[in-house]
Amino acid sequence: MMPDSELPSYRELPELPNGVRSGWGLFGDEDSVGLMNLLTPERIVAAAGLVRKGAVFRLDLPIGAVTPPPFGRGAARHTVLERDPNGLGLDDVIDNLFPQSGSQWDALAHVAYAPDAWYNGATRQQVKAGERNTIDFWAARGIVARGVVVDVSAAVEAKGGHAEAPAITPDDIEAARVAQGVDVRPGDILLLRTGFLSWYRAQSLEVREGISGRSGMRLTGIDHGEAMAEYLWDLHISAVVADSFGLEVFPWDRDDPFGFLHPIIIGQFGMGVGELWDLDALAADCAADSVWECFLMSAPLYVPGGIGSPANAIAIK
Amino acid sequence: MMPDSELPSYRELPELPNGVRSGWGLFGDEDSVGLMNLLTPERIVAAAGLVRKGAVFRLDLPIGAVTPPPFGRGAARHTVLERDPNGLGLDDVIDNLFPQSGSQWDALAHVAYAPDAWYNGATRQQVKAGERNTIDFWAARGIVARGVVVDVSAAVEAKGGHAEAPAITPDDIEAARVAQGVDVRPGDILLLRTGFLSWYRAQSLEVREGISGRSGMRLTGIDHGEAMAEYLWDLHISAVVADSFGLEVFPWDRDDPFGFLHPIIIGQFGMGVGELWDLDALAADCAADSVWECFLMSAPLYVPGGIGSPANAIAIK
Amino acid sequence: MMPDSELPSYRELPELPNGVRSGWGLFGDEDSVGLMNLLTPERIVAAAGLVRKGAVFRLDLPIGAVTPPPFGRGAARHTVLERDPNGLGLDDVIDNLFPQSGSQWDALAHVAYAPDAWYNGATRQQVKAGERNTIDFWAARGIVARGVVVDVSAAVEAKGGHAEAPAITPDDIEAARVAQGVDVRPGDILLLRTGFLSWYRAQSLEVREGISGRSGMRLTGIDHGEAMAEYLWDLHISAVVADSFGLEVFPWDRDDPFGFLHPIIIGQFGMGVGELWDLDALAADCAADSVWECFLMSAPLYVPGGIGSPANAIAIK
Amino acid sequence: MMPDSELPSYRELPELPNGVRSGWGLFGDEDSVGLMNLLTPERIVAAAGLVRKGAVFRLDLPIGAVTPPPFGRGAARHTVLERDPNGLGLDDVIDNLFPQSGSQWDALAHVAYAPDAWYNGATRQQVKAGERNTIDFWAARGIVARGVVVDVSAAVEAKGGHAEAPAITPDDIEAARVAQGVDVRPGDILLLRTGFLSWYRAQSLEVREGISGRSGMRLTGIDHGEAMAEYLWDLHISAVVADSFGLEVFPWDRDDPFGFLHPIIIGQFGMGVGELWDLDALAADCAADSVWECFLMSAPLYVPGGIGSPANAIAIK
Repeated sequence: MMPDSELPSYRELPELPNGVRSGWGLFGDEDSVGLMNLLTPERIVAAAGLVRKGAVFRLDLPIGAVTPPPFGRGAARHTVLERDPNGLGLDDVIDNLFPQSGSQWDALAHVAYAPDAWYNGATRQQVKAGERNTIDFWAARGIVARGVVVDVSAAVEAKGGHAEAPAITPDDIEAARVAQGVDVRPGDILLLRTGFLSWYRAQSLEVREGISGRSGMRLTGIDHGEAMAEYLWDLHISAVVADSFGLEVFPWDRDDPFGFLHPIIIGQFGMGVGELWDLDALAADCAADSVWECFLMSAPLYVPGGIGSPANAIAIK
Repeated sequence: MMPDSELPSYRELPELPNGVRSGWGLFGDEDSVGLMNLLTPERIVAAAGLVRKGAVFRLDLPIGAVTPPPFGRGAARHTVLERDPNGLGLDDVIDNLFPQSGSQWDALAHVAYAPDAWYNGATRQQVKAGERNTIDFWAARGIVARGVVVDVSAAVEAKGGHAEAPAITPDDIEAARVAQGVDVRPGDILLLRTGFLSWYRAQSLEVREGISGRSGMRLTGIDHGEAMAEYLWDLHISAVVADSFGLEVFPWDRDDPFGFLHPIIIGQFGMGVGELWDLDALAADCAADSVWECFLMSAPLYVPGGIGSPANAIAIK
Repeated sequence: MMPDSELPSYRELPELPNGVRSGWGLFGDEDSVGLMNLLTPERIVAAAGLVRKGAVFRLDLPIGAVTPPPFGRGAARHTVLERDPNGLGLDDVIDNLFPQSGSQWDALAHVAYAPDAWYNGATRQQVKAGERNTIDFWAARGIVARGVVVDVSAAVEAKGGHAEAPAITPDDIEAARVAQGVDVRPGDILLLRTGFLSWYRAQSLEVREGISGRSGMRLTGIDHGEAMAEYLWDLHISAVVADSFGLEVFPWDRDDPFGFLHPIIIGQFGMGVGELWDLDALAADCAADSVWECFLMSAPLYVPGGIGSPANAIAIK
Repeated sequence: MMPDSELPSYRELPELPNGVRSGWGLFGDEDSVGLMNLLTPERIVAAAGLVRKGAVFRLDLPIGAVTPPPFGRGAARHTVLERDPNGLGLDDVIDNLFPQSGSQWDALAHVAYAPDAWYNGATRQQVKAGERNTIDFWAARGIVARGVVVDVSAAVEAKGGHAEAPAITPDDIEAARVAQGVDVRPGDILLLRTGFLSWYRAQSLEVREGISGRSGMRLTGIDHGEAMAEYLWDLHISAVVADSFGLEVFPWDRDDPFGFLHPIIIGQFGMGVGELWDLDALAADCAADSVWECFLMSAPLYVPGGIGSPANAIAIK
């Protein structure tokens, strides 16, 4: 395992012909874990020290809360079964559970930057077969980290809100972070509260359908462009999480090398991406006690070959 | 909230006509959380102090690992979807996910001691409608506790193994606990390793089919009878977890008031029950460093109205 | 059962305050079958006489052929299971089967003209409980009828095609029928080939997504307005079937009493509606031998409480 | 296509080393249709002539009627969806639909006599990929045939009933057929009513669980042994259908070359096998009018790569 001090800066990463930089190989050629490798025992012990008042925050929305589900995914169907002829027991079963239709993790299997070149050189076939980058690589380890909340919702509001408005820039994030007085350390999970979910909850079903990700409506998120890629890498975080559909601005532009960051963040960096996490109660607590760090744990659904997972995340302060 | 010191002993609990005792009402008439109410901030802070070396143990088996699934439940079906016409993205969906077909929690909605009398007086209709006792009551809070491992596998072996052999008695558990030198405190989650899973993994598919819970084969587990009910209650634990199909001896005897403990533990006590958790690596680590306690977190799948959940559990030492 | 000669004309039907006419009660107050009641033994015997050359035409598209499925329905997932340890057997299972996502029947349970007033006065609750109008009422009887093919595809082409073009009028249908030299008789199933499916098959996935029914694109179909309602009723057919997404022009206008015909045809008339049937080979054969009638059978999937069904239809000439 | 007169007798078929005989190659090396190839236009026209009184019999049980489903298959889950915000429409979706969990067809893809040797030499891989023998080969054609009912239920009763009793022999079938005065002709579908379903309907859920096919209980059906194989082949029928779980006696004996007929009938002969069809009303009608033949149509669910299908069958007299 690479000592933390050796984690290269963005500018030290090798560059592809089109200018995009790659973190492949930093944790060995066979690695399927990516920057979650930074979750070392020392960091886990340190993060546990953040449990100071015993306040627990579940960071998942209930399954089915995002209606209609983004990007054309369907809604889960939950059936209660009466299997006991004596009427003393119940059972249940779930169908049509799209792990990415609510609060979720994108596994490193979710998206590639180039055809047949998933994170760390895995092929499409390896990923589909569950041999590389799938959610079980994280699920088997568990995700335990220091979480840092940065609340940029005020900046988003000031710039025009969540629809048809400017993107969130590295400067916006830095300004909020500095104002909060919190640092970001290697291995941290950055919890970026944009206020999207608060806004979304207040919209009608009709408006929600219009913003479910297939329409042309511009949705705010972190900005496209190399500056954001460089900023995120240089934080040396293990994962970046937001409370919005797609973390970054929608729609994307695949014709621009930096016009769609998911393939870079996931496919080149091996960085975890979380979306639609419910950060509202946690952020409110952070604002109240001015402590913007927490002990963060997630147990992804342990599905062999899974492409994503419900967040299954808990923050403790 | 009731102070811990006031939690009554088993003999202080009110008694039903048939001798079974009930913990209903201890946390209010509307309570749907049960003994997980003991997971107070103070206990959570104390439990976090058990993170000493940063070792993380995922306590779930992979989905699908228990084949065939116990008690006639079906196997989950996981489908990888190619939704991106550019071949750069993957998605997935899960059908036929029985939350209780592998490492799992029984919600307090799972079983009742008497018809139309679920834990704390909830009706069958309330439970089926997700108004009382369902998994979301735990999922919304998250489960964070001190975990205590007690390994009775040697005793099970000594008594004849996992099939057609005597049950595990309170004395067996106490003897193992004392030998390990660990105490059990109010609110703890008791992690009882019986060795079942190790044994099960070594069986052929044919034998596995015979022990999947519908056959008449006797499977070892905690003993039936009031002594075990009294023992578990008086530990004042929030939950009891085992590495076996049904925690208690199978088959059950519904004609004996104490011949099937689930309805008492869940329906009368409001105690969490976990089954088929993979405790092997954790127990091996405990044996190695003689530390039998851990920080335990679980994020049940947040399904409104859910009857159970994958364990989604992580232990940290 | 009402003698055929007594089946009233459209103008004889009772009129609602908004001018829409209703066929409720013609087959008794408890009827859930609708105009399929016209499929009498005499007509079935006569229809069987149309089997002259032994040519069989399956009128369903394969499950999954319409991609993406219309109106936001999902795609079925078919899983082949290897249940035989000897490798000598296979089994399979289907999830996410939307009966109306391809060649299909709308049951009389599919749509109502007014809230809580489904065909023949059934309540929403009765329909949801499978007590009235659901597909099993047809499935239990089987559907056996004389089929009459009317091919208006040339007219559609002449008027501008399938997208953003004028609707199909009663005159268009009559002109084609007369040119073909075929009559329509009480109880017949009218098979209206518009050519939509031929056109649709030639479109790219991208165009298909745009026409899947949630976009604003106008799709050709039978015209809205009372003239079409009157025309269809006065044919005294048991069902009308087309090879297009929604039979009638899309989008609909619910503010106009006759701006959305489904609720009238299904909810007031009790007439069967079939959509997305593959009539191409059958129509080609009819054009070749100038025989535009056939023996038609359909065995709807026998789902208690079903809202629709795959067509499961066969025509024989 | 082979003239009927050339269809060889059983004794003329090539013999495998273990004495089993094979019908491979009779319809060409690429054939995936099997004896359904006998459903020629001439036979279809002749069969339509059997529609004499217009009586229609649906031969499927409702989905879910066989509880618990045989051989460990799960029950279908049907969900009614309220997709219309105006409350004027309903939709539905089905999960966990095992095509073979009720009235059903076994496709030629269902079972092989030898590893990697499915009907007509198809490999397991070809079958799993839907390239050979799967249900769509029948579904695309539709199944239209003369049906002949032979009711052996009285013989079964006389011999001891459906459980733990002797098998149905060729002599039993012949005796019933002769008594009924009906002949069997090449291409016919033989509908063998054993009375199983009538008996099964009268059993308690507990008994039903015991006879669901995994227990050791002997269930009556057609006899094992070469005599039955020879009898069925020499009828030159396209398919054999029964009203019981598995057509033949259960349990099977794979160690005897003729101890399990499915692999021979399906895998070597390419003969259709239907199970759990509801023949009761049809057989009663045949007994009443002494006409034991019918026009039979089935539209298998058109699933690419399907291993089986609901029967979707209708008989007309």
